[in-house]
Parts: sequence; structure tokens; C-alpha cells
Amino acid sequence: MRIAVLGTGVVGRTIATRLAGLGHQVGMGSRTADNATAAAWVQQTGAGSTHGTFAEVVGDAELVFNCTSGAGSLDAVRGVGAGNLAGKVLVDVANPLDHSHGMPPTLLVCNTDSLAEQLQRELPETKVVKALNTMSALVMVEPGRVPGQHDVFLCGDDDAAKAMVGEILRSFGWPDRSIVDLGQISAARGPEMYLALWLRLYGALGTGDFNIGVAHR
Amino acid sequence: MRIAVLGTGVVGRTIATRLAGLGHQVGMGSRTADNATAAAWVQQTGAGSTHGTFAEVVGDAELVFNCTSGAGSLDAVRGVGAGNLAGKVLVDVANPLDHSHGMPPTLLVCNTDSLAEQLQRELPETKVVKALNTMSALVMVEPGRVPGQHDVFLCGDDDAAKAMVGEILRSFGWPDRSIVDLGQISAARGPEMYLALWLRLYGALGTGDFNIGVAHR
Repeated sequence: MRIAVLGTGVVGRTIATRLAGLGHQVGMGSRTADNATAAAWVQQTGAGSTHGTFAEVVGDAELVFNCTSGAGSLDAVRGVGAGNLAGKVLVDVANPLDHSHGMPPTLLVCNTDSLAEQLQRELPETKVVKALNTMSALVMVEPGRVPGQHDVFLCGDDDAAKAMVGEILRSFGWPDRSIVDLGQISAARGPEMYLALWLRLYGALGTGDFNIGVAHR
Repeated sequence: MRIAVLGTGVVGRTIATRLAGLGHQVGMGSRTADNATAAAWVQQTGAGSTHGTFAEVVGDAELVFNCTSGAGSLDAVRGVGAGNLAGKVLVDVANPLDHSHGMPPTLLVCNTDSLAEQLQRELPETKVVKALNTMSALVMVEPGRVPGQHDVFLCGDDDAAKAMVGEILRSFGWPDRSIVDLGQISAARGPEMYLALWLRLYGALGTGDFNIGVAHR
């Protein structure tokens, strides 16, 4: 599949590398066409991988991962343009972290709205799916590094888009029973606001190699 | 132990009944001295149980559970008075739910503050411990009804108070490894904001008999 990954940070590089390893044609996007991190990633990853501006890598991709920082995500997709993202599936992995109040960070948007809903409103013809934002990058693409049963949440307004993202998650190693559909895109407030708990668990455990699982009868 | 339970709703009654069953002297408090629900609870529970106003049941209790609705918790403790709660441990089980935006509810306070922090500021000489707010009432007092490993979070500024609450949690059936200390009272933003995810999981699962567990290496 042709997949665009927006963002060159740890999350973007980790997801892009995993997708390329699974045989996908991955384009890594950044604000500028000559981003050194993206160029180095292409060099390491080899044939089939490309890099360019956000708009260039979105090009004819079927699937787009938003791995930009949450504070910059709306600007990033505005740079691409709603028309260029129309009809595509956008997996929103970002968290709208606000570092202006000290540590741990707070959220720029929450409670009565979420970043995923903001993106969906900005891109009405794009199928936004919130997923994977509730764990560290390595756990996203290799769930087996955390022992025991633990889960990944997804939500969005389009069932076919969620099914496509579910396929990608299975290819990352997530078993069916660990992929929890929370419903419409407004449900993204749940996994985004969970970040406040994730940050305290990270502090208490001293490692990012953890995740939550839902126990139920 | 002499324990006051503030609130006559499902959470208050469930916790009060469990505590009475464990042999504690439990007083159930409400806004008025003649609350019919509290009177019926005393009738069912028998010797050792009492009911009265919030201030009356706090009396000489060593431990106080705040099981009032989150929207009314500050008023409830103001009614008791900071002086009457000085030196006591207050377990804050409440969630500051805001039903004015429709379903599912949002939060009255979050992100840069929490109900538990508001209570601690209102009651500077009380040892506030946030705990148990992340699950339905029956799971709080009988964790074994949900199979598998799942956890209860607590936080607060006073270690001795957290140890006392930890003892109560163990007596409810929580194993040591499932009692997760998140740190200071400001960490209550984590479990309180998790409610946004809990509400979507409740919707997706169709049962309150669930809880999350933290998987880690």
C-alpha cells in the first residue's frame, strides 16, 4: 500500500520503519522538502521509501498517518489542503500536548472536544481514525514487547476506514481481541484524555514499555 | 475503625455496606438528618451502623469516604467544615461529572486541576487520597467479579494516609500488585480524566463489570 507518514519524530520514524518493513511504499513528510532526518531515514530504509513535504508525500497515498506533534497537527494538514486529503484515511496518532504549564504536560484541547474531532472538522471529506496515541512508539508497532493482555483503541465515523486501520494494527502484531472500537470520532476524547493517566503511570513505572488492557467478563 | 461515608447513592451504599460487613462502625451521611435512603440502609445493616448529616457522621470518624456526586462534593465538605475534617483521611471516590452537555457526560474540572486537588485546597489539614473513581461501585468492593489482572489507582500527598487506604483496598480484595500509587494529589488529574475513556468503554462493552490493568515488563 502507498502510505504517507507525516512527521519525522520518534513516533513517525518508528511507524514508518515498521510499515516499510512490512513491504509498504512509505513516504515520510515534513514541513520542508530537504528535512535531514527524513532524508537519513530514506537512506537507511532503502528502495520504496521517499520523503518530501507533507503535501508531496500525501500525493497518491491511500493511507496517511498523522505523527506530527499535536500542537502542529492542524497547521500540518492545512498545509496539505483538505482537497489533497479528500477520500483518504487519516490515522491520527498525535496527542495535543501543552508544555506551557510545566511537567507533566497538559492538553491543548480536551473534555468537550479533541484533536481528532478538530482534524475531522478541518477535513470533512477525509476519514479520520484515532488510534495508537495511548502508548509509546515501540509498543505501537511491536505490542509483544509488553507481556500480558493489553489493548489498542480506535474510533472514527467510517467503518471501512476503521477496518483498514484494523488490518494495519493486526499486521503490527495486535491480536483481534486487543483492538477495541470505541465508536465515533467524538470518542477520541477518551484515549486523548487518558494521556493524563499515561503520563503519571510513566512517572510511576519509570518505563514507556507498558500499556493498559481492559479486563471484563 | 470508625468510618464516615458521605453520600447515599449507589457508590456510597455499596462502599458503606462492604465496610460494615468487614466489621467497621460506619456512619452514612447526607445533607439532611432524616434521609430515608440512609435510614433504610441502617435498618438493613444493623448494629454499629448510623446515619446523620455530613457533619454528624464525620464526628469522630478516623476515615471519611467522599461518595457524593462530584458536582456537590465541595459544598458537602464546606457543610462539614474544614476544622471538623482536620487531621482525618478523606478518600475521594467522586468524579466531577457535568451532565449539561448531554451524554456521555463531560468533566466540570480537568486538565490543569482536579476535584481531588480542589478538595485538598479546601481542606488543607485533611489528608485527601484519590482512589476507586475509575470503576463501577461493585468492582470497587469486589474486584474478583472482573476476571484477570486489573488495577486500582491511588494518589495523595500523605504517605501514611495512602498506606491506610491501601489497607482498606486489600480488605476489599485488591492484591498488593494491583494497587498502583500514582504519586501526589495532583496526579488525580490522571484517574479523573480517564473517566472520558471509561465512559466510552462502558458504551462499547455494555456492562460496568470491567476495569483496566497496567501491563508492563
